[in-house]
Amino acid sequence: MACYVQKFGGSSVGNIERIQHVAQLIDKTYREGHQLVVVLSAMSGETDRLMKMARELSTDPDDRELDVLLSSGERVTIALMAMILKNLGVNARSFTGRQVGIVTDGAHTKARVSRVDTKRVLLALKDKVVPIVAGFQGINEASDVTTLGRGGSDLTAVVLAAALKADTCFIYTDVDGVYTADPNMVPSARRLDKISYEEMLEMASLGAKVLQTRSVELAAKHQVPVEVRSSFQDGPGTRVVKEDVDMEQVLVSGVTGDRNQAKVTVVGVPDQPGIAAKIFVAIAEAAINVDMIIQNVSQDSLTDISFTVPRSDLKAAISLVQDLAKEVGARTFEVNEAIAKVSLVGVGMRSHSGVAARMFATLSRDGINIMMISTSEIKISCVVEEKYMELAVRGLHQEFELEKPPAA
Amino acid sequence: MACYVQKFGGSSVGNIERIQHVAQLIDKTYREGHQLVVVLSAMSGETDRLMKMARELSTDPDDRELDVLLSSGERVTIALMAMILKNLGVNARSFTGRQVGIVTDGAHTKARVSRVDTKRVLLALKDKVVPIVAGFQGINEASDVTTLGRGGSDLTAVVLAAALKADTCFIYTDVDGVYTADPNMVPSARRLDKISYEEMLEMASLGAKVLQTRSVELAAKHQVPVEVRSSFQDGPGTRVVKEDVDMEQVLVSGVTGDRNQAKVTVVGVPDQPGIAAKIFVAIAEAAINVDMIIQNVSQDSLTDISFTVPRSDLKAAISLVQDLAKEVGARTFEVNEAIAKVSLVGVGMRSHSGVAARMFATLSRDGINIMMISTSEIKISCVVEEKYMELAVRGLHQEFELEKPPAA
Repeated sequence: MACYVQKFGGSSVGNIERIQHVAQLIDKTYREGHQLVVVLSAMSGETDRLMKMARELSTDPDDRELDVLLSSGERVTIALMAMILKNLGVNARSFTGRQVGIVTDGAHTKARVSRVDTKRVLLALKDKVVPIVAGFQGINEASDVTTLGRGGSDLTAVVLAAALKADTCFIYTDVDGVYTADPNMVPSARRLDKISYEEMLEMASLGAKVLQTRSVELAAKHQVPVEVRSSFQDGPGTRVVKEDVDMEQVLVSGVTGDRNQAKVTVVGVPDQPGIAAKIFVAIAEAAINVDMIIQNVSQDSLTDISFTVPRSDLKAAISLVQDLAKEVGARTFEVNEAIAKVSLVGVGMRSHSGVAARMFATLSRDGINIMMISTSEIKISCVVEEKYMELAVRGLHQEFELEKPPAA
Repeated sequence: MACYVQKFGGSSVGNIERIQHVAQLIDKTYREGHQLVVVLSAMSGETDRLMKMARELSTDPDDRELDVLLSSGERVTIALMAMILKNLGVNARSFTGRQVGIVTDGAHTKARVSRVDTKRVLLALKDKVVPIVAGFQGINEASDVTTLGRGGSDLTAVVLAAALKADTCFIYTDVDGVYTADPNMVPSARRLDKISYEEMLEMASLGAKVLQTRSVELAAKHQVPVEVRSSFQDGPGTRVVKEDVDMEQVLVSGVTGDRNQAKVTVVGVPDQPGIAAKIFVAIAEAAINVDMIIQNVSQDSLTDISFTVPRSDLKAAISLVQDLAKEVGARTFEVNEAIAKVSLVGVGMRSHSGVAARMFATLSRDGINIMMISTSEIKISCVVEEKYMELAVRGLHQEFELEKPPAA
């Protein structure tokens, strides 16, 4: 008998028919005799519906009240799912975030889980009950409901799997796993049977929306085996697991393209110690997430400093840089939104050299200019003109033969 | 400075515009410097929407899960209301049934309030916060959410008003008070300025849907002054208060007609001791609510026993009586759904005689046959053919001059 956590996202419970289908999946696992905890999101579209009402009433809705509002959607799905499961003969019972013991800090709309009190869940499992848990929500020390931020139901699932030492945390979604590239961009993209936590983390933070970044971090920390599966079709998905020897044989696991990028260049900055620090401390204090930074070689004691930010942060970055440029005596500043970031990810890079050179050569062959470069142990990213993004991703997918399964 | 509870029903918060309007009403009371607790229902139609989904998934939805499902609607309205009030500068904060300390028994979908722990509300009021409370819901000793049954938000309001010793519990609804008769039936019906708890209780149980019956009982028990008002138009409503001398001067306060009635007659029952008991014990055990009972004078040692039940219970009553009739050796049984109950209510009947005689004479004058009669200290009810109900109500309203305000 294994212990499993099964999480189903919004599209998997998006209407009555989908809920009925998911109930069948749960019933099947239950009949196999496993211990089972189910985590559900709200029905897809529900969060948008509630947010729309909030925005009609207030331009800046209170965070505590947003959490009360948005956490109502999961209560609907867990109640409906528990009802239908009971009809199928499954001993199911709904649990809210509070009832499942997820205690968070007080940061409404983006709370962090501080502890999990598994008492009630363990009692339920002992009584052969299947807990149907509301994802995305917890409770703070003041006993107010909190939500865990975008994709927070993944986090609920992983947190519970870690606390229960579950054998696998299944994340059911509308795709059947993690691919070597976005199949919409690269038709020959191949589903990966397994991927390491670190690779998944890089992919997730690069915009592959299969798994929420924080949930992958937590899975890695607690060594929770995760498997991404489709609730729309049968069959295995992608296992997200600890790095193993097989994975190291593979040079590159995946290639990603990310349009959510903008570049800001502060032009003609006096090349003196402390100037760059001044700029980036101010930006960090405004909670703007800087990704890459490049400083040009100095000419006539003047230099240019470029950095990238998510497009959603660009407006805030511009209003900050306007003042900063004057303050540090820079000549002017420039903004470029028509850029994209193309990245190769693979734990194999740790032990193999030459990946960067092959990447640059491939882009060059296709006439794509590289504007910025950044590297980590298992990732190489290049900023290119946005219009070349798909060409770059396809060229790299082909160059590294990602469509071919790794040799056994 | 007074302490008020203001309850707004589903139609009062039925859409964004209505919520904005109610926020203005709350804001006004807040600016007057009063202590204020607001209780809200779910948006009208929301409960039906959720129930529809539940029924699509299950013919007999689990009660515990129904409570999780149905209690989600109030979370939406309290969060939205708290948001808009904060924007208006009112220091508002949402409270769920649990947070407001409403502890109930374990009877899901029709729980009874066992105690109210006002600690958090009192703290909030001390901090000049306006608690915006989810009506209709509480929490049982197992920490599961429960709901208080149809109209349960009224109960939440009265329970809180009693616990806080509030000066008035305002019930805002879509009518501006309690009338001498249903204005749809009697155009000259007059709004009552005040009515006693007992009269209101009789009116409520007779089908005047302004206030939930249990909430009136509780208000009477704790002597909570209640006022029914309209949230759609300004002005005073009807105060529901302790009986006073003025009220006793008035013979009849109101007249009601109730179509939700059906009559069952067991024909040719042997007139022996214990037979009637056998029938009514069986019916009570099936939780069928018998209203009036009549036993005819015996002929040839046979008698007929008639009783009325709500039409919603008729099906259950018939299947029971089919067996019972055989068991007690009755000849047959008959069912009549085309009946209605017409009632006069007024505490003045306690000290004035002749009301019944005038009622019977009025009905007789209009050619209406009386099928059954029942009386209490402050009420006289007659069962008549359903087609005569409106005629009877109008005739009685005129006979007792209910359109005229009582003499000062």
